[in-house]
Amino acid sequence: MQKVSKKFLKDSHLIAELKLCNVRLINNSKFPWIILIPKRKNITDIFQLKRKDQNLLIQEIVHTSKIMKKIFKAFNLNVEKIGNVVSQLHIHIIARSKKDSSWPLSVWVVKKKNYSKIALELSNY
Amino acid sequence: MQKVSKKFLKDSHLIAELKLCNVRLINNSKFPWIILIPKRKNITDIFQLKRKDQNLLIQEIVHTSKIMKKIFKAFNLNVEKIGNVVSQLHIHIIARSKKDSSWPLSVWVVKKKNYSKIALELSNY
Repeated sequence: MQKVSKKFLKDSHLIAELKLCNVRLINNSKFPWIILIPKRKNITDIFQLKRKDQNLLIQEIVHTSKIMKKIFKAFNLNVEKIGNVVSQLHIHIIARSKKDSSWPLSVWVVKKKNYSKIALELSNY
Repeated sequence: MQKVSKKFLKDSHLIAELKLCNVRLINNSKFPWIILIPKRKNITDIFQLKRKDQNLLIQEIVHTSKIMKKIFKAFNLNVEKIGNVVSQLHIHIIARSKKDSSWPLSVWVVKKKNYSKIALELSNY
C-alpha cells in the first residue's frame, strides 16, 4: 500500500476506507470537502490506474458524491483531480452552496480557514 | 440527444465525438484545454449517469487524458467537474506546464485569453 503524503496528514483527517480509496476530510471549515486517495503506489494520474481500478474510482466518486449531496444539501458538487502541488493521485469532492464564500467561483480563489479545535475534537465522538 | 449549452457554443469548438461525450476545445490560448460533454439529456452530476455511462465516462477521460499528456507534453493534467456556472455536465481536462500562466495554482485564478482568429482559422484545415 502507498504512503499518504505528509501534506495530506497535516491538512486532513481520515474518515473512511473504501475498497480503492481512503477518504479524508480536508481541514477547511469554509466548505464540506473530502479527498479520495487511491491506495496504490506511485500513481499520479487516473490513466495510470489499472482499468478495474479506474472503474472502482468512478464508482467511489459516485458513492461519496451522493452522500455529500445529501448530507450537506449541496446545490452543486465540484469533483476535481488537480495535483499540481501534491502529485499523489487524489480527487477532491467539494459540496458547494450558493451562499458559500467563493460561489460561483472555484474554491481555489479563497484562503482556507481551519476548523476550530473544539469542532475537530467533537467530531471524534 | 441533449442540446449543448449556449455558453459552450460561444466559448469552445467541437473537435471530436466519442461514444459518450462530445469533445470541445476551450477558446483560451493560455492552456491546452478541452471539455468532455456527455450526450445525455438533463444531466448535471456524474452520479446521475447510468452506471454503464459512468464507466464510459472514466474510460473517455482516460483516453483523452493520455492524448493531452502526450501531444502537449503536459507536466500534469487537471481533470475537473465544476459546473457552478453552466450546470450541464462537462469535464474539464487541462494540460498544465510548470511554465504556464497560473502554475502551480488553479487555471481559475487567471483571466482567459482567446486564440487569435488566424489560429482558429488555421485549425480548421
